[in-house]
This record gives sequence, C-alpha cells and structure tokens, in this order.
Amino acid sequence: MHAHVDIQPALKATAELIDERFDRLLESPDDARRILYDATRYAVTGGGKRLRPLLVMSACDLFNVDRERSVRVALAVEAVHCYSLVHDDLPCMDDDDLRRGRPTTHKAYNEATAVLAGDALLTLAFEILADDATHEDPRVRVDLVTALAQCSGLQGMVGGQAMDIAAETSTFDLQATTRLQQLKTGALISFCLEAGGIMGKASPDVRLHLKGYAHDLGLAFQIADDLLDAEGDSATAGKKLQKDAAAGKSTFVSLLGNDRARQQAGMLVDQAIAHLASFGESANVLRAIARFTIARDH
Amino acid sequence: MHAHVDIQPALKATAELIDERFDRLLESPDDARRILYDATRYAVTGGGKRLRPLLVMSACDLFNVDRERSVRVALAVEAVHCYSLVHDDLPCMDDDDLRRGRPTTHKAYNEATAVLAGDALLTLAFEILADDATHEDPRVRVDLVTALAQCSGLQGMVGGQAMDIAAETSTFDLQATTRLQQLKTGALISFCLEAGGIMGKASPDVRLHLKGYAHDLGLAFQIADDLLDAEGDSATAGKKLQKDAAAGKSTFVSLLGNDRARQQAGMLVDQAIAHLASFGESANVLRAIARFTIARDH
Repeated sequence: MHAHVDIQPALKATAELIDERFDRLLESPDDARRILYDATRYAVTGGGKRLRPLLVMSACDLFNVDRERSVRVALAVEAVHCYSLVHDDLPCMDDDDLRRGRPTTHKAYNEATAVLAGDALLTLAFEILADDATHEDPRVRVDLVTALAQCSGLQGMVGGQAMDIAAETSTFDLQATTRLQQLKTGALISFCLEAGGIMGKASPDVRLHLKGYAHDLGLAFQIADDLLDAEGDSATAGKKLQKDAAAGKSTFVSLLGNDRARQQAGMLVDQAIAHLASFGESANVLRAIARFTIARDH
Repeated sequence: MHAHVDIQPALKATAELIDERFDRLLESPDDARRILYDATRYAVTGGGKRLRPLLVMSACDLFNVDRERSVRVALAVEAVHCYSLVHDDLPCMDDDDLRRGRPTTHKAYNEATAVLAGDALLTLAFEILADDATHEDPRVRVDLVTALAQCSGLQGMVGGQAMDIAAETSTFDLQATTRLQQLKTGALISFCLEAGGIMGKASPDVRLHLKGYAHDLGLAFQIADDLLDAEGDSATAGKKLQKDAAAGKSTFVSLLGNDRARQQAGMLVDQAIAHLASFGESANVLRAIARFTIARDH
C-alpha cells in the first residue's frame, strides 16, 4: 500500500509554473503582431487543470529527469492541448463562448486571431521539443517530435476530432465511442507518459507499463468527463454542459448509464494504478492523478 | 554565363511527384475519419506551382542529397504552405471561394473539416521531418524541425499573417510592408534553401549564400505576386484578384507604382542569382527559378 498524496498542491504549483513560463515565452513584441501574441498567451494561461503538464513531469520524475527539461516537454503538451481547445471552440466547430469560466479566445479576440493563435501554439510545441535545452541527445528530441506528431495528427487527436464531428450525424456504439475518445483525448494523454519514457531512456518493458497506465487513465478521464457533463454544474465547470446530449452524440454515459459508467471508471483507475506496481513510491503522484481523475468536480 | 534552363518540365515533374506522394501518405482509412483524409488530400494535391518543393529539391541537389530524402523535406514544406492556404481562405480570414481554379477546401467540404485539415497538414510536416527516412543523423532532423517551426510560427509565417490582418485597419509603409511579406511569404521560402544547407551539412559560408538568395527571391516573388494581383487575369490565376486594393491594404505595387515595382523585382532577381556564383552549373535550376518568379503568369 502506497501513501496517498494530495494532488491539489502539485496541480497548483504546476499551473503557476506553466503560466509563468508561457508568459515569458510569449512576451508580445511592439509591432503589429501584438494582438496575436496576446491572444496566444490568453489561450494558454489563466486556467486549466494542467493535468497533462503534471503527468509529463511526474512521468519524467520516475527517471530523475532534470526539472528544467521536463517542464519544456510539459509546455509542449499543454500548447497542443490548448491549441486543440481554441480550434474546437470556434463557431464552425463546437461554437463555445465560455471556457474555464472566461470568454473563449475567439470571443475575447476574434475568429481569425483565434485560428492563428491555435496554429502558433501547435508550431511552438514542436519548436520547444526540438530545442537542445529540452535534451542534449538529438535522438531523444526527434523521438519526442515524432511521438507528439503521431499522437496529435490524423492518427491521433485531429483524427479523433473528425470522428467527433461524424458522431453528430451517425450513431456510434460503445466500441466506436471508445475508439473516438482514445484518439481525441487518449492519444495526447498517452504522449505525456510516453514522453517520460523517452526522456528517461526507459527500457521497452518499462514503457509498456507507462503505456498501460496511460491507456486506462485516458479512458477513465473521458468517462469522468462524460459524467461531469451529464451531472455537473456549469458554473463549477466554467463551460457549457450537456452539449453531447443536445447534439445527440453517444457518450460513455448515454451508452452505459450513470452507474455502470462510474463503476467502469473506478475499475479503470484501479487498473491504471496496477500498471505502476514496479515503480514503488516514486509513482505516488501518478497514482494520485489517477484517483483525482474520477474524484474531480471540473 | 550559365546555360538557361527551362523550368517548366522541372515544375511539372515536381508537381506529379508531390501529388503522388501525398496520395500515398494520405490514403483514407475506412472509418469516420475518411472525410478528413479526403479533405486533407484535396488541400495538398491537384494544383499549385510546387515552387517550394522544387526549391527544396534544387537546394538539396547542390549537395547531392539523395532524392528520396529531399522529396520528404519538399513534402513537409508543401504541407505547411497548403495548411496556411486552407486556413487563410477560411471565411473568418480572407473568405475565398476559389483557389487554383477549384473550390477552396472549406467550400468543397466544410469549415470545421478545413480547420482540421490545416491542423493535420501542419502536424504531418513535423512528423515527416522527424522520421529517420528523412536523414540518418537525428541532429539533421532536429535542425530541420527547429528551422521549419521558426519559419512558420509566431516569428515567421503565422506572425506575418497577423500583420496582414492588421494591415487592413492601419497604414503600412514600404518598410513595414517589406517586413510583413518577409514573414508571411519570405520565411517559408527561406526555409526551403536553409533545408538544403542542413541536409547537405553545408559550411556557414555556403549557408549565407543560400540565405541571401532566398531573401532576394522571396521579395521578388512577392512583388511579382502583387503585380499579378494588380494586372493579372483572374481566370489564369485561378483565384480572386485585386483583393488587396479592395481591402485598402498596402502592397509593393500601391507603394512603388507598377513600373518601379517591376524594376525592383528584376533587380532582386539579379541579386538573388549573384548569390549563387560559387555554385557553378549545379545551381542552374535555382537560377531558372529566380527568373521564372517574375516571368510567370500565375
């Protein structure tokens, strides 16, 4: 039995660290690009659970990766996550006005600037990973770039978004919904753990454990999201809820019902934690993240 | 005096090669992502001068880089170029219905799919560069990723797009217009030549010559574009013309007048070619590209 870690202080510290780094990285120049830099900074700061950065840094901590390096990988992941939110919130996509309790980027600025801010963040992610401050070994950096591109492109997140659009007009069963969510949300979460293995030059065996944890965590996270969407409070969530039901989309909750969905999520969290057995105490934060995933209220 | 090369056969062969490779790379899967793959392939095939891929491959040819490798870098550049066109054509940006004589991607499909297709192409570019089929040395691949990210992000193309939006509501003088165009168009053209130097592990001296050529070529290309926009035929161009004038934007033509703009473009082409002096006959295609830049009718 491992000591339970309270995840809140770690999340708070991560959020502050990530905000501070993005503020520095994205300081606005004194020219006509100012608004774009402002919008890009707006899109990546001031809110968000920063669960993915904490996952990256905790996975890197398993291998004693220098914090100055792991935070760079965390920034890259959060840049990709936030770009996907900015584009997903656009009028032609989900048409959301509210995100993390604030106006979405296209509402706070304008649509054209929001499209470009998303593009800028995606590009920035790869620039951060490829920089030699991220790791002295270029093979490690190029492996990070490859893994992030695969998890976030057509075979990953963007492909999942396309399935999500298709789900509005056709019926997805449990298998198809699982596949959709594995691509849309799970792939980037998997990258967070994979990145730890790459940075730590972990053995194939160890990487398999991390992969198993990421797989189960990603699904549990999505089921918890669906439960919050169905039962949660929009003020606490800081965004519009019950959107999937309104759009007639299948979710884990609509397919399984609330009780079975909750049960399933709990089982996945147990499974995720079981994958960490070989890491001992050093994986306590990852264990706490898994528990937090289904206990959070937003 | 170097022998003049007819650029048309090289452009035609490049276009066929690029189309064929993208068709293979982007084969649609038999699931809900099919439409997105179709739209992504649509956005990168069937049209386009393929000037950037030819620049990349010609720059790589200076150093006898294997064609199988240089074509991969060419694909990455063209993916970034086409993503920028897809996003630029969106209703919230330039709102264009026609590109290369065909409906723009959001017209042929829909806006949400066009946003995602652009995102997919940008991601694909980095995936292609980072793959070990591009070069056996990971340092070379990571340098390509860094250079492409810098040329296409906030400090490059995306920043130039933001300036372009600002140019609709404020007056840009010749210096500001030059800076805008260097970022919006010039940066990616510079990458094409820089990529040759990286792939060929060229000396700093040689890279400076390529940089000089790229700088002058990029500006000449943009002035020629402005002249075509002001004087050209929309049917030949395959897109709407006189847009800048209608939007009240400064261009090289509005700032210099047609005659001085044409003169300036010619001078820049001569300068660009002068930077190639040390390469001898091996740079004949690059010389021909420079001449073509101001002689083309679309």
